[in-house]
Amino acid sequence: MKNLFKAKKVKVFSPASVSNVGCGFDIFGFALHQPGDELVMRIVDKPGIHITKITGDEHHLPRDAKKNTAAVSLRAMMNALEPKFGVEMELHKKMPLGSGLGSSAASAVASVFALNVLLKKPFSKNDLLLFALEGEKIASGNIAHADNVAPCLYGGFTLVRGCNPPDVISIPVPDDLYCTIIHPHIEIKTEFARRILRSQIKLSDAVKQWGNAAALVVGLMKPDYELIKRSIEDYIIEPIRGSLIPNYFLLKETALKNNALGCSISGSGPSVFALSRSEKEAKLIGTEMKKVFTKIKLKSDTFISKINYEGPKIISISDNT
Amino acid sequence: MKNLFKAKKVKVFSPASVSNVGCGFDIFGFALHQPGDELVMRIVDKPGIHITKITGDEHHLPRDAKKNTAAVSLRAMMNALEPKFGVEMELHKKMPLGSGLGSSAASAVASVFALNVLLKKPFSKNDLLLFALEGEKIASGNIAHADNVAPCLYGGFTLVRGCNPPDVISIPVPDDLYCTIIHPHIEIKTEFARRILRSQIKLSDAVKQWGNAAALVVGLMKPDYELIKRSIEDYIIEPIRGSLIPNYFLLKETALKNNALGCSISGSGPSVFALSRSEKEAKLIGTEMKKVFTKIKLKSDTFISKINYEGPKIISISDNT
Repeated sequence: MKNLFKAKKVKVFSPASVSNVGCGFDIFGFALHQPGDELVMRIVDKPGIHITKITGDEHHLPRDAKKNTAAVSLRAMMNALEPKFGVEMELHKKMPLGSGLGSSAASAVASVFALNVLLKKPFSKNDLLLFALEGEKIASGNIAHADNVAPCLYGGFTLVRGCNPPDVISIPVPDDLYCTIIHPHIEIKTEFARRILRSQIKLSDAVKQWGNAAALVVGLMKPDYELIKRSIEDYIIEPIRGSLIPNYFLLKETALKNNALGCSISGSGPSVFALSRSEKEAKLIGTEMKKVFTKIKLKSDTFISKINYEGPKIISISDNT
Repeated sequence: MKNLFKAKKVKVFSPASVSNVGCGFDIFGFALHQPGDELVMRIVDKPGIHITKITGDEHHLPRDAKKNTAAVSLRAMMNALEPKFGVEMELHKKMPLGSGLGSSAASAVASVFALNVLLKKPFSKNDLLLFALEGEKIASGNIAHADNVAPCLYGGFTLVRGCNPPDVISIPVPDDLYCTIIHPHIEIKTEFARRILRSQIKLSDAVKQWGNAAALVVGLMKPDYELIKRSIEDYIIEPIRGSLIPNYFLLKETALKNNALGCSISGSGPSVFALSRSEKEAKLIGTEMKKVFTKIKLKSDTFISKINYEGPKIISISDNT
């Protein structure tokens, strides 16, 4: 049994992520350095998955291993292993659910990443993606979208071409991009944000959208910052979901006026992201966006982060459980 | 007057182009080395635009300067110049109209490129694009689509984000790509091919399409040939237009079986393109695709070409008119 494990206990960080990125609904995403979840995993003799503690979001997250995303993804992984051991987990949520920052994806990735580390990495990232998607399904009304799980797990800026089989493509991006996140204290359920979308869209709008999706990739890879700025524009989703976020269009205008390279809804919202080229600009954008919410007495948090190329990482690892 | 001109006569080549490229309806296109149109332009004293000869497609193309795409685009350019001279043109069509190879775009580009050369290039490519689009409108039922004009004029692989103002983006592509074109002897009018499309499409199909459009750009720029192959797949247009080309789906299967990196309808058809990585493969694909048409007694032409990075070019230039 001893040789099976690299260690008996690990603490990992699993990042928040911005999905959609304006023009890439359901395909684009990138990982952040903060916020993110922390998860402590211990190998124990008692078979099964035992959630021993949840901090940060106790009121929302179920401890039931059948309903908790970290446990459901881990269950999928353990079903593939048929292990003789059990696992205890402490989940420290450092970001709210329903924030549009890939909270459920971060938890789903954290557990499978942690166990893979403890087991000396028997599984590839593509395998882990499929396990994590099982957890993500629980949070998103049984639809497996990988646009948060993929950047969270692979790090960097990702394009999800498909989930079955997984086709996650890493897009090289310039290393001077900063992301400002503003999270207003309202909650939007992913399921609701998806239900209000139209199932049919205009071909002419779709053409503009795939023009922008393709152009954003060119802009990121060349890099061409003016092109990035022109391309982060969403003709399909933002006009509908923008109305769920108080003062959204003013918020976006404020970011762009303050030199943002692009600004749109993070995932299904209510968080909003803005890209820029320096920490100074990113902070200024955050300050100015916060004022928009403060004026209407809406509380908000801001986060500043470069793009996280690494994905989840080990905080500490030991045999001392 | 003498200083105005670089020369009094020029003969130019203007290339055919493949638009849409599978997943990029109305946005992607690339230029070919062959086929292409040739145009001879002479500066004359008599004001106006005079078409003195058309070869190659006399039965179809109007000599009336108000209806001929080369003349209409040139008229737009001359309106901006208010010249005291006139222009004589001979147009030698080397490809059929309604072939899906950007025939009208090639003629529209040929004339404005030729006059720009003779006038020592007063206009930028973006200016020429707008003039050429006026010609293209005549051929496409008054809709200005730049997906053939742009690659024809700029050369290489282009992405058209918008026409007003023009936003043409050059996408760097690997230099070992070969294109096989097969042109069955049937005619499909662009206007008709456009009319049969649905104005509303499924959001879920659109997501797959913009996933592919973005992925094709990554594949071309990295380059990643397997990704190129997976991405040249059209969920929206090909299922409808494919039925206009006899045995189209068998033709495509044949190309892919013979190592094509991708195969789809060129523009609105009936020509079909296939990409590959060597001249040998490109020729084999052409031979095998031709057999598919021969079996049903449909005549066809094949062309093999690398991607043309240059766009239109001068064949000869002189003062000897």
